Amino acid sequence: MNNEESVVSKHPLLESLTDAMPLREMTRDQLVGLAAETRDVLCNLLATRTAHFASNLGVVELCIALHCEFDFRTDRLIWDTGHQIYPHKLVTGRYRDFPTIRTRGGLMGYPNPQESVYDLFMTGHAGSSVSTAVGLRSGDVLSGNPDRRTVAVIGDGAFPSGIVFEAMNNAGELEDDLTIILNDNKMSICPRVGAVATYLDRLRSNPYYTGLKTEVVRLLDLVPMFGDPAERLLAQMKEGVKAGLLGGMLFEELGIRYVGPIDGHDISLMRKYLAMVREMKGPVLLHVVTEKGHGYKPAAEDPVFFHTPPAFTEERGKPVPTASSGCPPFTLHARNAIRKSMAEDDRVTIITAAMCQGNKLEPVREQFPERFFDVGICESHAVAFAAGQCKTGLRPIVDIYSTFLQRSYDQIFQEVALQDLPVVFLIDRAGLTGPDGPTHHGVYDLGYLRVFPNMVVMSPGYAAEVELMLSAAIHHDHPVAIRYPKASALELARTPDPIEIGRSERIRDGRDGTIVACGSMLDQALAAAESLCDDLDVGVVNARFIKPIDVEMVRQSVETGKFVITVEEHAKMGGFGSAFLETAVEQRLDTRRIHLLALSDKFIDHGDRDELLAEEGLGAEQIAQACRDAADDRITMTQDAKPIHATH
Amino acid sequence: MNNEESVVSKHPLLESLTDAMPLREMTRDQLVGLAAETRDVLCNLLATRTAHFASNLGVVELCIALHCEFDFRTDRLIWDTGHQIYPHKLVTGRYRDFPTIRTRGGLMGYPNPQESVYDLFMTGHAGSSVSTAVGLRSGDVLSGNPDRRTVAVIGDGAFPSGIVFEAMNNAGELEDDLTIILNDNKMSICPRVGAVATYLDRLRSNPYYTGLKTEVVRLLDLVPMFGDPAERLLAQMKEGVKAGLLGGMLFEELGIRYVGPIDGHDISLMRKYLAMVREMKGPVLLHVVTEKGHGYKPAAEDPVFFHTPPAFTEERGKPVPTASSGCPPFTLHARNAIRKSMAEDDRVTIITAAMCQGNKLEPVREQFPERFFDVGICESHAVAFAAGQCKTGLRPIVDIYSTFLQRSYDQIFQEVALQDLPVVFLIDRAGLTGPDGPTHHGVYDLGYLRVFPNMVVMSPGYAAEVELMLSAAIHHDHPVAIRYPKASALELARTPDPIEIGRSERIRDGRDGTIVACGSMLDQALAAAESLCDDLDVGVVNARFIKPIDVEMVRQSVETGKFVITVEEHAKMGGFGSAFLETAVEQRLDTRRIHLLALSDKFIDHGDRDELLAEEGLGAEQIAQACRDAADDRITMTQDAKPIHATH
Repeated sequence: MNNEESVVSKHPLLESLTDAMPLREMTRDQLVGLAAETRDVLCNLLATRTAHFASNLGVVELCIALHCEFDFRTDRLIWDTGHQIYPHKLVTGRYRDFPTIRTRGGLMGYPNPQESVYDLFMTGHAGSSVSTAVGLRSGDVLSGNPDRRTVAVIGDGAFPSGIVFEAMNNAGELEDDLTIILNDNKMSICPRVGAVATYLDRLRSNPYYTGLKTEVVRLLDLVPMFGDPAERLLAQMKEGVKAGLLGGMLFEELGIRYVGPIDGHDISLMRKYLAMVREMKGPVLLHVVTEKGHGYKPAAEDPVFFHTPPAFTEERGKPVPTASSGCPPFTLHARNAIRKSMAEDDRVTIITAAMCQGNKLEPVREQFPERFFDVGICESHAVAFAAGQCKTGLRPIVDIYSTFLQRSYDQIFQEVALQDLPVVFLIDRAGLTGPDGPTHHGVYDLGYLRVFPNMVVMSPGYAAEVELMLSAAIHHDHPVAIRYPKASALELARTPDPIEIGRSERIRDGRDGTIVACGSMLDQALAAAESLCDDLDVGVVNARFIKPIDVEMVRQSVETGKFVITVEEHAKMGGFGSAFLETAVEQRLDTRRIHLLALSDKFIDHGDRDELLAEEGLGAEQIAQACRDAADDRITMTQDAKPIHATH
Repeated sequence: MNNEESVVSKHPLLESLTDAMPLREMTRDQLVGLAAETRDVLCNLLATRTAHFASNLGVVELCIALHCEFDFRTDRLIWDTGHQIYPHKLVTGRYRDFPTIRTRGGLMGYPNPQESVYDLFMTGHAGSSVSTAVGLRSGDVLSGNPDRRTVAVIGDGAFPSGIVFEAMNNAGELEDDLTIILNDNKMSICPRVGAVATYLDRLRSNPYYTGLKTEVVRLLDLVPMFGDPAERLLAQMKEGVKAGLLGGMLFEELGIRYVGPIDGHDISLMRKYLAMVREMKGPVLLHVVTEKGHGYKPAAEDPVFFHTPPAFTEERGKPVPTASSGCPPFTLHARNAIRKSMAEDDRVTIITAAMCQGNKLEPVREQFPERFFDVGICESHAVAFAAGQCKTGLRPIVDIYSTFLQRSYDQIFQEVALQDLPVVFLIDRAGLTGPDGPTHHGVYDLGYLRVFPNMVVMSPGYAAEVELMLSAAIHHDHPVAIRYPKASALELARTPDPIEIGRSERIRDGRDGTIVACGSMLDQALAAAESLCDDLDVGVVNARFIKPIDVEMVRQSVETGKFVITVEEHAKMGGFGSAFLETAVEQRLDTRRIHLLALSDKFIDHGDRDELLAEEGLGAEQIAQACRDAADDRITMTQDAKPIHATH
């Protein structure tokens, strides 16, 4: 692998592009060369950092063919889910900035309208592309711009997301011109699951793909007329026969023309088909078959590992991950706790929405295949399905990233909280997820979960709590959510207090003030308290429960010392601090000594998690400074405001 | 129509039922008699109150046939959306309590597990039945109860909801035995829309339905062998041809056996088919065609009006609504404001998710057909579709009930707030919706909306504000939500202050304390202040903005008088009061004088809205009492707490 300078000289075609227009004039050989350059850049990137990889390798030719046949400065292109955007960024003039991708201040790892006119929507959650495309098309027609074409590219993994069905239902009725590219690589992050997947497998082996279409359709003319059928019946029959033969009935039945499948690594073939569907009336679905990891053998052979591989170097032709440091992540502790629960209690099931790998659940799937359910990227279904299981006496665990659990908001409300069913939510990636950025940060979950009656919401501050919390959750006869971040779990040399619903844990005493840490922020809170020990004697509480909040803890921490600082990896509005205030006011406590540290009211960019936390005032140093300020502030306030519980 | 006693004597069969078991022994004639009794009860109910009507008339026979062929004390039955539950309640032993339906303390207008072992899930939001059924089946199999059958009954209106697709994707893979009854009455509340609807229309006219199936399938054997096709190809062809002929490919392609359509008003026919599908392996969809309003001519002829008609009496054979009193509802003011906006500005479009009637949008549909979009019960799509339109320069208004907007949480996050697109949300039924109960109360919207960056959230306190707010929203270049309840809009004899983003409106001055009313609670707040005028001089502020909250108003109201009481028709956690506290603490104000009145942390039952508000402490009287208490409390506190800004 190469350093940046030599990389630049290796990619003359990419280097020459300021936008995608020149692609339209390139020869076939040049386009093939461009694909090779693109792939080389992608492979080099992985020497430097974790990034989405295999899915990007898979769409190189598709991306190039699209830019040859459309002008996406005015035509509309949505890349669903968005992590396969790298080739698109490279061919639309972002080659020079590409080495900055996924770093603070650099290119985003997803489409970003602020970077380029070629990026329309920031997409990170699956399935919405067809809806936005239908909206774009409708808007362009209404606004008098019917010549702008609209294309949505959606993977087979994202396709079963409910919103896609809703969008097709609408598109099939509106009959607006629209091209949906189904990028079928047989994968979600993990091998895809579900009936749609099986269906696509069948389509791929249909006669159309193998070139026999014409032969087969000729059959229709051989069907003899007979007996006394009404004209209408005969016409219907022929339509039915044709449709059945040609495949794609799932789409055709919804009024969406189905074309394909075609080879997604043959640029010329794709150009031909794209030129054809571009001119078709009404909504069309073009089924393109690609290989995830195409062109880099290790990735094509193990696309699960290479979805977002760690940074690696190659040794003897094999990628070797660079060593990682630090304690194991919360995710791993959660996985181990899940296994333990399932071994101890055969009512426990585990449900994932295509995140078996991200949640490190492979060993659970192996050990308990009967109680392991991967429902695909279908979070709404995942939660309602869990509710159904609960009613039969099972204890399902729904293991989903915070940001994706947003897609089940209504099922958490109606199917779980309202029915008061003991579904356990393990909410992974709750907080700042780092390089993935704003579509992936999970910073609203406390706000939306704690509002629901019957819910218990907790968050572990350190590793040993995870298993205890899951066990408590499974033995609690009501819905429970446990949130934890994408981060190493703090390892504390202490035996955790037993988990009692609504009871916090005091980790460190302190006379001068208290930091109340919500979940993951315990690490930073303890470091802050430690760093202050020459100036201030600051206690640290591990809140544990966001709901029900520990009322006695709120009272004590407000009444002890000069200040209380709540710290959370969550939006300030509606979060843990807000719950703390609600309680303090209900208890008629003096809230002027309470300070909330939490995420500000803006969408937070991508970058390293520690970097982002520091910028948001949530690093250990910033927390320490906030303690100092609060202690000083208190002195000022004491003079002015004559509060009752001043300690000096 | 009759009074309750004579009603009782008219329905001997229903009266005799304590559960549904006797249905299995009834003769055909008795079952027909039972259907007639059921229909009579439904028609009588409408003399007394607004209730779901036409959909219940449509499922009488289906409900009876189901209880004949299954034992739902142990078998599993989910009625999707749930408002067609009345016949089910009547035949499962709730005839005597039936006159209490939808009244405080009476039967719920939806399934309710607390009422009967026959009701499994409280369902009010569409589409989740297939998911919960898949979960139930999976749970019963895992728990060693495979003999329990599972049935989901879902309407064609609910069918395009995304979660149904997600559930079918999973069901088709799991291959668990499962019966999905598609209750096809060609209606949502309004005539249904979308490609699925068109598809069902086609299915209804297919040869199978008309009895020609056998003839048609015989054709297959007439297809001659020819040339040199591979065996595999021939087999595929035959399958394709068969499937194309038999219909239901949309389901069959997903691995779900399609049976039907059959006549949903023929009990014997349905029993035959139910007995058949009950024994089939794997997931089966039985397509049942019913008529909404069946058996009561006016309802069958106008099922939109008779979906939830007002109470009426019959005069000369025609239903005459009993007179309604009070000012026009917020919904009507919103509709008028929408029309005005659309007339003034051709960028404005309106999007509804099958709630054209509920939102009184029919005249808008008529006047602006090109800019009116009914996307069906597909709220996720509705919001992403709006975002797409926005990108082209349009200004879409998304008009959805608060509780149903929950289904677009993730699209509000990703497609609207994150992209900072100026979608306008009109959030109707925000607050306690009265007789519909907990599935329909919209009491979490402030909590989930105000957390998103870029959002503006406002709420009108009186009629004249509605139009001004919509106009301000359309001219604001960021997302805006306007929430209002299912209630008459207060009419105030004043010219409203102009709307300025983040600025509240002082309606009434007062020395002793302030009530800060959020939206709909202005009515009760003013009445409370008025009722107190002999004892206390209480000011009233119309908050207008939940986000951005009026910081200066927060400061002034906390610093003036003895107390501030915030009042909102929303859950206390995370709501307006919580936002008020966050601001007060940030401003270092003394929050001990702040009291929050809001809904308690429980799911609130059905009942009359005023009744419910009073029970929750939000009636004018309760607010007045809270002011008195706060004033007293303040006196105590002043002595103890030595606050700075006491005015006496």
